[in-house]
Amino acid sequence: MLLSKLVCERVKEAPQDAKILSHILLARAGFIKQVAGGIYTMTMPCQKMSGKIQKIIREEMDALEGQEVLFPVVMPRELWETSGRYDSIGSEMVRFRDRNDRDMLLGMTHEEAAVHLCKYIVTSYQQLPLMIYQLQTKFRDEPRSRGGLIRVREFTMKDAYSFHCTQEDLEQYYARVHAAYNRIFRRIGLKNFIDIKSDTGMMGGSVAHEFMLLTDVGEDSLVLCEHCDYRANMEVARSVIEHPLYASAPLECVHTGQDRTIEEVCARLGVPATQTIKAVVYAVKGDADKIVIAFVRGDLEVNETKLRKIVGCEVVPYDGGYNDVVACGNIGPYGLDQSVVAVYDASLEGTRGMVIGANRAEYHYTGFEIARDLGDVTYHDIVKVADGDVCPVCGGKLRVENGIEIGNIFQLGTKYTASMHMNVTGADGQTFAPIMGCYGIGVGRAIGSIAQESNDKDGLILPISVAPWQVHLIALRSDDEQVRASAWALYEQLQANGVEVLFDERSCGAGVKFADADLMGMPIRVVVSPKTLAGGEVELTLRRDKSCGKIALDRAFDEIRATIDREMQPYLQ
Amino acid sequence: MLLSKLVCERVKEAPQDAKILSHILLARAGFIKQVAGGIYTMTMPCQKMSGKIQKIIREEMDALEGQEVLFPVVMPRELWETSGRYDSIGSEMVRFRDRNDRDMLLGMTHEEAAVHLCKYIVTSYQQLPLMIYQLQTKFRDEPRSRGGLIRVREFTMKDAYSFHCTQEDLEQYYARVHAAYNRIFRRIGLKNFIDIKSDTGMMGGSVAHEFMLLTDVGEDSLVLCEHCDYRANMEVARSVIEHPLYASAPLECVHTGQDRTIEEVCARLGVPATQTIKAVVYAVKGDADKIVIAFVRGDLEVNETKLRKIVGCEVVPYDGGYNDVVACGNIGPYGLDQSVVAVYDASLEGTRGMVIGANRAEYHYTGFEIARDLGDVTYHDIVKVADGDVCPVCGGKLRVENGIEIGNIFQLGTKYTASMHMNVTGADGQTFAPIMGCYGIGVGRAIGSIAQESNDKDGLILPISVAPWQVHLIALRSDDEQVRASAWALYEQLQANGVEVLFDERSCGAGVKFADADLMGMPIRVVVSPKTLAGGEVELTLRRDKSCGKIALDRAFDEIRATIDREMQPYLQ
Repeated sequence: MLLSKLVCERVKEAPQDAKILSHILLARAGFIKQVAGGIYTMTMPCQKMSGKIQKIIREEMDALEGQEVLFPVVMPRELWETSGRYDSIGSEMVRFRDRNDRDMLLGMTHEEAAVHLCKYIVTSYQQLPLMIYQLQTKFRDEPRSRGGLIRVREFTMKDAYSFHCTQEDLEQYYARVHAAYNRIFRRIGLKNFIDIKSDTGMMGGSVAHEFMLLTDVGEDSLVLCEHCDYRANMEVARSVIEHPLYASAPLECVHTGQDRTIEEVCARLGVPATQTIKAVVYAVKGDADKIVIAFVRGDLEVNETKLRKIVGCEVVPYDGGYNDVVACGNIGPYGLDQSVVAVYDASLEGTRGMVIGANRAEYHYTGFEIARDLGDVTYHDIVKVADGDVCPVCGGKLRVENGIEIGNIFQLGTKYTASMHMNVTGADGQTFAPIMGCYGIGVGRAIGSIAQESNDKDGLILPISVAPWQVHLIALRSDDEQVRASAWALYEQLQANGVEVLFDERSCGAGVKFADADLMGMPIRVVVSPKTLAGGEVELTLRRDKSCGKIALDRAFDEIRATIDREMQPYLQ
Repeated sequence: MLLSKLVCERVKEAPQDAKILSHILLARAGFIKQVAGGIYTMTMPCQKMSGKIQKIIREEMDALEGQEVLFPVVMPRELWETSGRYDSIGSEMVRFRDRNDRDMLLGMTHEEAAVHLCKYIVTSYQQLPLMIYQLQTKFRDEPRSRGGLIRVREFTMKDAYSFHCTQEDLEQYYARVHAAYNRIFRRIGLKNFIDIKSDTGMMGGSVAHEFMLLTDVGEDSLVLCEHCDYRANMEVARSVIEHPLYASAPLECVHTGQDRTIEEVCARLGVPATQTIKAVVYAVKGDADKIVIAFVRGDLEVNETKLRKIVGCEVVPYDGGYNDVVACGNIGPYGLDQSVVAVYDASLEGTRGMVIGANRAEYHYTGFEIARDLGDVTYHDIVKVADGDVCPVCGGKLRVENGIEIGNIFQLGTKYTASMHMNVTGADGQTFAPIMGCYGIGVGRAIGSIAQESNDKDGLILPISVAPWQVHLIALRSDDEQVRASAWALYEQLQANGVEVLFDERSCGAGVKFADADLMGMPIRVVVSPKTLAGGEVELTLRRDKSCGKIALDRAFDEIRATIDREMQPYLQ
């Protein structure tokens, strides 16, 4: 490819809304062009990267006996009603009416379509296990798209769906997909990634893992043990909460005036935060009158994902609108209005001598003893893990890091097969709903993640396994007859032999050419100039470490081929 | 691939709504499964075919220096307003509001996106010509989707856009694309296809060609000369209209009673249809009060596409609602209400002694002489060509055939670049709007067209260049130990060496296996059975002609490979 013809503009300035490095670099290198919020056109270099990533994904899915299919982007409402998701998913799913006035939607995932396809075809246990997958456009109407390709509204996704006779069989297959995902991310050149346990979210199901690229700009909070291999998404992470036990005391109502925060009350009463119980108020989404109050120890934070799972519906922080129950401010578990849903964290079990709100302006109780004063209550784990907490597995120290989700795998169970009445006949003649797994990777996000991880101050450093071109060939002083002839001959020789070359044959200066090559990030740079040709040589530089050497012009092709083979080694299957 | 695991059900019965052979066969072979009207899931065999077709398209586009990009499916209203198409395209374009209340749409084509991408990047004539293309999902809300993959609402399309300095350069490039399209259709195995001149429709522009598969079930009418290479879509086809000249006579109002059709009036007055003038009444779409009347010779039909171009807006047959002007029934050009738009066909020029409606119930005029009685009017070609008409080029006989559009190419001119203010600086320092071409192929329709053309009473006959698997291997009596061992060994040897094999290792009978193989249509069938093994052989059959032969088991692999190479020959580049 001739750089002069490439529809891809390198610019010095990043877009105004670009906050993270991958967005800045992909935009500056001309790989992406924004069309609307969270919607991009991919230029040729980006689309070539996408194609190479897709090829690697296909190889790994095919090795898992995956059958590539293609589900539609646009689906009818009826299909999504069979699983209940037409109603349970909110405004991130695009809905429209077609010209015949039928309700349609843009698919966010394809569990329903997968079951719809298999339902009448797969009827015997002998056909299981099986896996189908696709690479298809998804549209999710994200409220806050950002970060270039990291969080977009439209993207290409590989989504896979497996069907099994038993949970055991699913688990075995799940482990194989898990291993394949590690291979995929390694092969596309990601380095600092891990897998963690995660919440199953709108997918339903029990066990799920996310693959996370560790990076400061990641939106997800991850909890990692520094000693063992415990790691989990903050949404589901646990830690050991130590219970300082305070002296038992009688329940006593004390005046605390305008002091309302934990800090203020602790200061006034001379107690540590661990001796207080905090109330966090939520409203049920869509039903502002229904109040959920989470009680946790004063030094802890509520994990809303855990809370949602326990109350079984979406909750949002209470917006402070008028409500008799919580209007007083000092909310506590004792004497609480019966109309609210109270959820007690496990950190409260067995506590005594605690300070709590008195459900009355300007007053708190001291000496609250939960078992004595409330009786039997059910405790749940609803707190957020904090940096330095104790690992629930080994007792080691937990660390909180940020990550970008680059893939996810779910053990779905029978949520979709049961609700859609997919029945398979077992060896014993009985019918059952097959157990499903599902497995996703976003291709655009993978490109963003590579850009986020592999770069230096000068630009992108693309892994050779996914770089659009393996070689960036530069003719310096292309007005020099000998340079032009040698560079074009090398370009044509490389192309004719299947080497992917981006050829900068422009007449501009060396500075512009080197800057463009650094910014675009192809792994091998080859320079032909009057100076190198004087010694009968060309110059070969690796983008990843800028190591540089001269090679004889007549051996250039062989050396470049050998370099490509050598550099590709770490990324082979 | 093991047939027992393939999610693809062969059935005897075609879907109720399947009227044409390709739909019936693709559905019966399990290649497609309907999700909603005009919306299908493609199973693995169909998706593999799609992938091979896409690969061939990519090779041919890359050979035209095409740069593969990816435009978004979802685009903002503003982008389509820049070209005026947001308003000019009707309900076949899906529009919706996103969660931030912005008007969005699902792209039907991507001229606007292409100009949006290139507008600021391509600023000098030195960057031209260039071509960008994509393979992307399109959604068009067709009022009547039908024919399986022939006319769907959602489909994968290759769309390409080229930019040029001069019309001459566009024409040269257009000719190259034209040749590439012929190669593509030949390489994917289509045989009886032609290219014809066509209407530019909603794309705008001047010259356009469609590639048409000739088949009785095609929705398009094509006009072909039997003697020269004149061929055109009925929408734009011309023919030589011979003018029988009748004797001049005075204009005379005659009573014709209830006789209103051309046949009735001709019978009553004893004149041929060529001596009458027919009025066909249209309403302007969206403005039912505006009436357009097309006047053509009584024996001819109106070509509505031509008429629309002349009146410059969408017209629909008048639905007979109340309107004073046309309520009388017998409509004629003489004494016509001035409020209607009258369009005269070229076949009326110079006519005399004609019978026309008198704009009065129960009366016609005879002796109408258009120049004498109306004066100067403008004539346009608005008639439909009929089978047997005279070729406008060579005077030969025209034939009308049906065809399926399998691709189209357009010379767009500057419609998009001018309206979107894309300016390029020329060699002389002046800026100009580049001239565009655009070029489309629907991948799903290509699959449907192959199925429509290549089949026999038993099922599909897939061209080896696009068949999902090259070999359909059958183990007959798979309970036989020797058969099983030999068939599996051959399967594994073929797979290990890159031959694509569908392996029917099921325990069912020979009848089912042969019927499935015939229905699915893989080009090479290999049968291993106790009978063939008794002679140390396997049986190899070509699906295309059912020619069949025995080959030694120990030479089977080599023979299969040689057969594949031989069969592939006609489809190579």
